[in-house]
Amino acid sequence: MERDYEMCWLNYKKDVIHDIKEIKEWMEDIVIIGKIYNFNSIKDEFEEFLSILGIKPKFHNNIIKKSKYILLGKYDDLKNLINMSIDENNLKDEGFIILVDKLLSSEILIITGKTLNSLIYGIYAFINKLRMGYKIRDIKMVESPKIKFRIINHWDNLDGSIERGYAGYSIFFKDNKILFNQRIKDYARLLSSIGINGIVLNNVNVRGEAIKLITSPYIEELARLADLFRNYGIRIFLSINFASPIYIGNLETADPLSTDVINWWKRIIKEIYNNIPDFGGFLVKADSEGIPGPYMYGRNHADGANMFARLLAPFNGYVFWRSFVYNLQDWRDTKTDRAKSAYENFKPLDGLFDDNVIIQIKYGPMDFQVREPISPLFGALEKTNQLLELQITQEYTGQQIHLCYLGTLWKEILDFDTYAKGEGSTVKRILEGKIFGRENYGFAGISNIGDSINWTGHDLAQANLWTFGKLAWNPDGDIKEIVKDWIILSLGNDNKIIENLLWMLLNSHSIYEKYTTPLGLGWMVNPVSHYGPNPEGYEYSKWGTYHRANFEAIGVDRTSKGTGYTLQYHQKWTEIFDDIEKCPENLLLFFHRIPYKYKLKSGKTLIQYIYDSHFEGVEEAEKLKEKWLELKDKIDDKIFQRVLERLNLQIEHAKEWRDVINTYFYRKTGIPDEKGRKIYP
Amino acid sequence: MERDYEMCWLNYKKDVIHDIKEIKEWMEDIVIIGKIYNFNSIKDEFEEFLSILGIKPKFHNNIIKKSKYILLGKYDDLKNLINMSIDENNLKDEGFIILVDKLLSSEILIITGKTLNSLIYGIYAFINKLRMGYKIRDIKMVESPKIKFRIINHWDNLDGSIERGYAGYSIFFKDNKILFNQRIKDYARLLSSIGINGIVLNNVNVRGEAIKLITSPYIEELARLADLFRNYGIRIFLSINFASPIYIGNLETADPLSTDVINWWKRIIKEIYNNIPDFGGFLVKADSEGIPGPYMYGRNHADGANMFARLLAPFNGYVFWRSFVYNLQDWRDTKTDRAKSAYENFKPLDGLFDDNVIIQIKYGPMDFQVREPISPLFGALEKTNQLLELQITQEYTGQQIHLCYLGTLWKEILDFDTYAKGEGSTVKRILEGKIFGRENYGFAGISNIGDSINWTGHDLAQANLWTFGKLAWNPDGDIKEIVKDWIILSLGNDNKIIENLLWMLLNSHSIYEKYTTPLGLGWMVNPVSHYGPNPEGYEYSKWGTYHRANFEAIGVDRTSKGTGYTLQYHQKWTEIFDDIEKCPENLLLFFHRIPYKYKLKSGKTLIQYIYDSHFEGVEEAEKLKEKWLELKDKIDDKIFQRVLERLNLQIEHAKEWRDVINTYFYRKTGIPDEKGRKIYP
Repeated sequence: MERDYEMCWLNYKKDVIHDIKEIKEWMEDIVIIGKIYNFNSIKDEFEEFLSILGIKPKFHNNIIKKSKYILLGKYDDLKNLINMSIDENNLKDEGFIILVDKLLSSEILIITGKTLNSLIYGIYAFINKLRMGYKIRDIKMVESPKIKFRIINHWDNLDGSIERGYAGYSIFFKDNKILFNQRIKDYARLLSSIGINGIVLNNVNVRGEAIKLITSPYIEELARLADLFRNYGIRIFLSINFASPIYIGNLETADPLSTDVINWWKRIIKEIYNNIPDFGGFLVKADSEGIPGPYMYGRNHADGANMFARLLAPFNGYVFWRSFVYNLQDWRDTKTDRAKSAYENFKPLDGLFDDNVIIQIKYGPMDFQVREPISPLFGALEKTNQLLELQITQEYTGQQIHLCYLGTLWKEILDFDTYAKGEGSTVKRILEGKIFGRENYGFAGISNIGDSINWTGHDLAQANLWTFGKLAWNPDGDIKEIVKDWIILSLGNDNKIIENLLWMLLNSHSIYEKYTTPLGLGWMVNPVSHYGPNPEGYEYSKWGTYHRANFEAIGVDRTSKGTGYTLQYHQKWTEIFDDIEKCPENLLLFFHRIPYKYKLKSGKTLIQYIYDSHFEGVEEAEKLKEKWLELKDKIDDKIFQRVLERLNLQIEHAKEWRDVINTYFYRKTGIPDEKGRKIYP
Repeated sequence: MERDYEMCWLNYKKDVIHDIKEIKEWMEDIVIIGKIYNFNSIKDEFEEFLSILGIKPKFHNNIIKKSKYILLGKYDDLKNLINMSIDENNLKDEGFIILVDKLLSSEILIITGKTLNSLIYGIYAFINKLRMGYKIRDIKMVESPKIKFRIINHWDNLDGSIERGYAGYSIFFKDNKILFNQRIKDYARLLSSIGINGIVLNNVNVRGEAIKLITSPYIEELARLADLFRNYGIRIFLSINFASPIYIGNLETADPLSTDVINWWKRIIKEIYNNIPDFGGFLVKADSEGIPGPYMYGRNHADGANMFARLLAPFNGYVFWRSFVYNLQDWRDTKTDRAKSAYENFKPLDGLFDDNVIIQIKYGPMDFQVREPISPLFGALEKTNQLLELQITQEYTGQQIHLCYLGTLWKEILDFDTYAKGEGSTVKRILEGKIFGRENYGFAGISNIGDSINWTGHDLAQANLWTFGKLAWNPDGDIKEIVKDWIILSLGNDNKIIENLLWMLLNSHSIYEKYTTPLGLGWMVNPVSHYGPNPEGYEYSKWGTYHRANFEAIGVDRTSKGTGYTLQYHQKWTEIFDDIEKCPENLLLFFHRIPYKYKLKSGKTLIQYIYDSHFEGVEEAEKLKEKWLELKDKIDDKIFQRVLERLNLQIEHAKEWRDVINTYFYRKTGIPDEKGRKIYP
């Protein structure tokens, strides 16, 4: 198949397969047992992969006589044919098994699982193992996803633009029309190959024509997309506008307790399920940043969410309800602390949400800064389902111009111990459903893809999407292994490539943090665009994001003696965060107000740390480029040049960050750099 | 005539005419001698005015027998009929005469002048005198405009938006269509009544569809507008895109020395004059803020401007060429000074421009800040025609939310003595053509009107448009008289109204300056919107507008020892501006870098001055409202409420300015207010 875009980690063309002969021997015949024989997605994937090797597989829907072949089928369809030595209890609905066994006189490679999803996941796992050089007889896998909901959120607008999108235009929408093409199918393959099982197609900010997506004729067109994604085990969801009954329903209210409103939504939901029987449900941003919500009617978020939940429940639909709720603020008001807002709005409602409501919580209390503490809601909502919201798109983390691999940050988030039920109550265990006796948990990631040739603008930003899927599948996954697999599948199985890319990716978040806003400072960014340094860009704004730097100190005291934000954590963390000596250094300025001359544990003053961090950050950004240049002859030239171009921009923009931030503090304090490096006056 | 908008100072309905009987006696018969009898604009104006008094005038085109009447005609047509005791030499082409005389047995009020323009101006002057309560026999006027070009620039876009417009949408354009309606006619009346004789219809930033305005079918539609404006003595001009030959001419260059380019423009210009025989010419923004210009081809601005000038000259057309040219800058670069740019670009070209090129120069070297020094170009271009560019629309001066009457500032600009040819070489004398032996000078004002009910958003902002016209007519006009006339004609002839409004208008610029950026500081404004305080909003930008505040001092040293900007003035000013003791206090921070603890002449420290200024400014803004409230029962209630609403906003936003700026400096210095007033930490 000819494409005018590339295929990321599914670029079968570039693979070095160790033993084509072996693959040919095994894979020229593929037996697919049961109804799933009719699912083209399965056959397509084998065909696409094997066509690169010049192999045209024959598909059978019954056992054949041949020395070696592939046998694929649902577990229930296979278990009467062959006695697999597997403990069925280890196999969740979406889990898969790959193993080699004997059947009659044949040696067979079995791929099985309980559902279509599990088979699809098994196929990708198998193909990827082959591509990484595994021998077929050595492949044995039993894997189930640890997390139930593995969701991608698209902030795609109906006009084709993408809010906070840095890789071109939407692949779903253009000029208020819904697209349907090979690229969308390939996107479904990419997502399915990393275990994604749900996708919200449109922006959480639902405005204008997008409000009508839940109605005809859009819903019939969306049904085609749903059919396509269904083949890859992915349910589709839609973002809705809470006030739709007013905007498009001719009602005068959107009050979730109004019978008219309930009936209106009931009709809408029925119509949706008439067209899309496995429709996933709604994502709702309400009472946030000027978007309407239940507060307009004196109702709370549980009233709002449960109204939808009860209408969706009969169809097995869900409500993802965002906790990103806060009030606009007067900068003169030092009592209010936006960091406290999500907890204050949602903690009192714990236990009031229906079981098919899932509260979608941003990882930190503010908004996807390069470093924030973990939202205290994760430890606090004991009787409420939760989705961890991560931002794959690099809004505040370099907008896919800067290399900023996010897996290392995400890993820290997942490993954070909330102490909700004593030690070990980590975010990942909560999301696995192992802490609070509930099961509807998951990951939601804001997509970083668009219609650019490489999907993500920066080629290496593909690793963020890959990692999101892998961690959502298994939050215990080793981050180095995850990255290594991505490197091999995407860029090549070469030691130097692996070594250099590992260094680049695993250090990139820390590098970006160093030359932008270290120590949990955040927000020193240009308003609106959220790109580039602007030390007081948000200082006198209504957004509640202040550092309040003066001539002697910087930061907001969020301890129990300050705004009291630390009191939202379990006591152990309150004590740690409260104590300037115990507080993790990378969050010092998030929690404390600190004089520039304060000595950190290293013996450095705060101001010197800031200077050092920015100089080091730029040096390391330059090292990213050096590492890349070493790969010149090993990497596909188109990719090499594209990444090089962005690395050059990154260095230039990192210097702008360094100089602006250092000058800002130098002007504020008059304290020179101890090492005498250039700080502009 | 019913209108869904108001008529500003031409609201004939609201007048208190002292003696309707007298007016009836004189004005029931109006004799119009000569061809101008056929100009409807003249008859319309009399009819509109008199209809309010229940009078339907009879028009005659020959002398009549009646005890009293009005006689109107061109001077050449009248002078054989009646011997007017007037020195004809005092009468310029656009000047008018109003006097009472005898003819046969009649007493006649004569309105005359050499051109249509002069008669129109005479009619408005006469009607306004009546409306202000003058007796007909007491009206005697001989007036000629002192300035040749009195031009309004519209920054209207073809889609109907207005760049830096704060009073609704364009009255000329909508959805890429040209409008034609009563409102445009009424606008022509408003402009004509204040002596405007030229109007540039479209934005200087000429983009997209607007590039095609100079071609068919737009040009035929513009011809209709030109016909309309011609009746009111106003020529129309268009802004053009320098690169039009590329954008719409299918040429590969816009080089002003290319024969292809010249021929292309020649055809365009011929076609324009085929449709609009008195077309005024082009306004050109070139090589500025990303707009293309002659520098792209290694040519200079004289090459560019003269190319157009030579093509326009045969048709009596002109080129207005803007001097607003500067390069984007790196904030780290302290040598470059944007203030020097216009002079550096244009001074070397003095003498190279054709006589129908007029360089349009912003009043200050930066960009319409609340306070700047006068551009040194005015004293420097001795062999080049000049237009003084003023911004009637309040981009940086409160966006028609804040009351900021600009006449006081403009008066200071006009009275500035450049010393170009010794003492008395004021800007106004230059513009009158009395200093350099040239005559093509004038005023260009950026329009502040839109399609809002009161034309200017803030009702009192109408006074800025009025004053612009009056000063362009006579830059020696007494500003208090100008304002007083406006008050009487627009709001009522009542002592309390006059007293309070005079106080409000004449103090408003100083008040705005106090609570925003006093001492010539400028630019502490939100980027893009240019509204509201943002002390470092432009500090690390590419715009060349820095104050470089640190913990001990603020300002850029623009003296001869600093960037050398002061050297662009004649020596007397160089010495004054160079010397921190002699430099006018309201420009101190424009020219000097000054420590916060520096003592001003008042004995106050700089920092205390800043605090005091901001507290005082808000107190005085509150006083504006008090003065307005005193007029509650005297002012038309709709106007009263609209202005009150804006005054309330002004006070709120003035407090925001006060608090942000004071906090900014307090954080920077740690120096408290001596008077212990509230500064937020």
